[in-house]
Amino acid sequence: MKKVLIANRGEIAVRIIRACKELDIETVAVYSEADREALHVQLADEAYCIGPRLSKDSYLNFSNIISVAKLTGCEGIHPGYGFLAENAEFAELCEECDIKFIGPTSQAIKSMGIKDVAKETMQKAGVPTVPGSKGIVETEEDALKVANEIGFPVIIKATAGGGGKGIRVAKDEADLIKGIKITQKEAAAAFGNPGVYLEKYIEVFRHVEIQVLADSYGNAVHLGERDCSVQRRMQKLVEEAPSPALSEELRAEMGNAAVKAALAVGYESAGTVEFIFDHINQKFYFMEMNTRIQVEHPVTEMITGIDLIKQMLKVAAGEKLPFAQKDIKLNGWAIECRINAENPDKNFMPSPGLVEFYLPPGGLGVRVDSAVYPGYTIPPFYDSMVAKLITYGETREEAIAKMKRALGEFAIEGVETTIAFHEKLMNHEVFVSGDFDTKFLEKYDVMNS
Amino acid sequence: MKKVLIANRGEIAVRIIRACKELDIETVAVYSEADREALHVQLADEAYCIGPRLSKDSYLNFSNIISVAKLTGCEGIHPGYGFLAENAEFAELCEECDIKFIGPTSQAIKSMGIKDVAKETMQKAGVPTVPGSKGIVETEEDALKVANEIGFPVIIKATAGGGGKGIRVAKDEADLIKGIKITQKEAAAAFGNPGVYLEKYIEVFRHVEIQVLADSYGNAVHLGERDCSVQRRMQKLVEEAPSPALSEELRAEMGNAAVKAALAVGYESAGTVEFIFDHINQKFYFMEMNTRIQVEHPVTEMITGIDLIKQMLKVAAGEKLPFAQKDIKLNGWAIECRINAENPDKNFMPSPGLVEFYLPPGGLGVRVDSAVYPGYTIPPFYDSMVAKLITYGETREEAIAKMKRALGEFAIEGVETTIAFHEKLMNHEVFVSGDFDTKFLEKYDVMNS
Repeated sequence: MKKVLIANRGEIAVRIIRACKELDIETVAVYSEADREALHVQLADEAYCIGPRLSKDSYLNFSNIISVAKLTGCEGIHPGYGFLAENAEFAELCEECDIKFIGPTSQAIKSMGIKDVAKETMQKAGVPTVPGSKGIVETEEDALKVANEIGFPVIIKATAGGGGKGIRVAKDEADLIKGIKITQKEAAAAFGNPGVYLEKYIEVFRHVEIQVLADSYGNAVHLGERDCSVQRRMQKLVEEAPSPALSEELRAEMGNAAVKAALAVGYESAGTVEFIFDHINQKFYFMEMNTRIQVEHPVTEMITGIDLIKQMLKVAAGEKLPFAQKDIKLNGWAIECRINAENPDKNFMPSPGLVEFYLPPGGLGVRVDSAVYPGYTIPPFYDSMVAKLITYGETREEAIAKMKRALGEFAIEGVETTIAFHEKLMNHEVFVSGDFDTKFLEKYDVMNS
Repeated sequence: MKKVLIANRGEIAVRIIRACKELDIETVAVYSEADREALHVQLADEAYCIGPRLSKDSYLNFSNIISVAKLTGCEGIHPGYGFLAENAEFAELCEECDIKFIGPTSQAIKSMGIKDVAKETMQKAGVPTVPGSKGIVETEEDALKVANEIGFPVIIKATAGGGGKGIRVAKDEADLIKGIKITQKEAAAAFGNPGVYLEKYIEVFRHVEIQVLADSYGNAVHLGERDCSVQRRMQKLVEEAPSPALSEELRAEMGNAAVKAALAVGYESAGTVEFIFDHINQKFYFMEMNTRIQVEHPVTEMITGIDLIKQMLKVAAGEKLPFAQKDIKLNGWAIECRINAENPDKNFMPSPGLVEFYLPPGGLGVRVDSAVYPGYTIPPFYDSMVAKLITYGETREEAIAKMKRALGEFAIEGVETTIAFHEKLMNHEVFVSGDFDTKFLEKYDVMNS
């Protein structure tokens, strides 16, 4: 592959451009009118405006993106995460236009995109799943029957949802009847698909996910887990690898399950199988598969030494995976803090605007993935994540010490950021203990601790 | 150790402060009047002005530094490199004042500081040395006798010199007689010691050095080599680890020789044994030992995973080395480019002044050690090195690709820098081949290639 279009913005666009440059692949950036001054535009070999500031007119604009790719002679399109990354229709359009979609096939995206179908596929492949309805629940009666079989509380999930969207908990029958209707309506509006299904609600769990990597020859490996239990309103804020809660045996079991999941849908490229890890009972269940690169991929890169974006590019170019499962070794500990332009003292209210001063931390074991520069104006139209700070140490303790040091050095002036939140968190005894679940931030008021 | 004074400035002061913070050690910075706005002053827990801008009045001011250490309750002083780092008198004063000098004992510094004595010690310890005079040459007759025995060309070295200073080549008898007088005079003026000795001049060689680490219990290990053959006027510009020229056998031999060298002088802390590596004849000879941390230490950290500054702090606190030689593994490849505020198009003329824009590169495998920030004014009074850019890859090829990518991103505006020089160098076919010696930059006009 000689030339690639990056259909994204922000840090992930910069991340992909970096990998391309190191592989001697020419890069084409695309940008909305609000992103003329963005770093990814400056770093790419070529850059083209694809529409107005609203995502639907620019970063989600199929035809403009495909046109730029065709006109500039790009052989592939890397979608990053978000935007078109899990859009099977777009992947299909790329396939029809003879442009390599740098990710899984449209078929694999579809298989995992419809959650109740994915779940059934997983059951057949022998991957543990949460007890629940067999596919979509159509009627109130069906729903009540299933709920009473598996026991309340239950969770109502939109089959086309994902990433924490389109889900609702029901603690009793009245809740369930009301909840089904609302979720169906919301799902129809948000995803164009009103289907919902039911699952036993597991209240206390850790979010543990497995990174997989597969080529187009049927080879697949897993690269260990990431623990993403530090969430606020189902949005991840801090991720680490490995998980402080997983035994060597469970790591192998969960890893094997993830590889089975990938192979079951003919997966190629990098992907992540997310699990509900009931750490109290030491059981795990398939949650969903993200058929794309994830925000938190760097922590896996740090402990495996494997560049996931380069591997995606190589697999897309038809190369075989250069390693087998036995070659994958996990070394040390990595933590990622998502630095958002938000005010943690004001309920994480977004804080876009002019970055008056910017100095990222440096030194041994510190990695910064960002698209910010001094004088850059963060636009209010997109995601508020502006930098990822990743630290690596021999042990969790060392990675935390490095994170505290690096957060203390990180200087961003002009906008509010979540740096102060992360500093509090890294000093919080529950976080330090490693013993927490996804309710951690609900239970503890970290900013006032 | 709970509190440490850093008797230095610039990136190495920042580097040491970072290691201290990660070990929960309080830091005290010192600064000259020209360095009030320096980054190390801002990052330390406390900071004190120790004198005017001239080094002799500030960073070399024994009594002011010791006073600050005593008044602030510091248990140790880390000297960094340069300034007081190899000053046996200062180390002795620390010992007398019951402050731990974070480095070797004054006795070990002395043993290695007088070059002809050090050479004799090395010979006794079985470390290969270059043929030459037995100690100081006192008279013209002695010098001529030695030179004719070993054969011209010979090299005249000031016994108190080091780091490329106080040395001169003589190609015949007339050269030698003249050269001895000049070198003696210069050495007396520069080092307060006129003694010179002679060595066979090895014209074509690579500069290869071994990092050693020793504790105060007689344990010493080596951490592999660094190749520093890219030099301009005997000043290193680029360093890499491992060396592209060393076989596994020679690496082990040279490593063992370096450990012998360290043990022969009762060394503790981090130190470097520099060798002349005659790669054509596959022979190496002791050059000198640097009894301090070196500028290029990060490349070793990248391939061993060992934090050298933390180890210095731990050894100084009386801890034993936590590993034996068999535990040291070298992984991958690291390269360091020294980014100097100099104009490579104007004979590397220093270019101090206001840094109007500053954005260091980031991402996987990129490390920046620097004390620059946007709006910082680089003072003209000290070393012109303002940043070290270190990249790490699985192979030399990948480390070079990363370096090219990172240099391309590195934005420093307002002052001239050597970034453009390094970009040319990373694309130079001789550098890429790995087959060069210390005359590389004399032979090739890299800037116009």
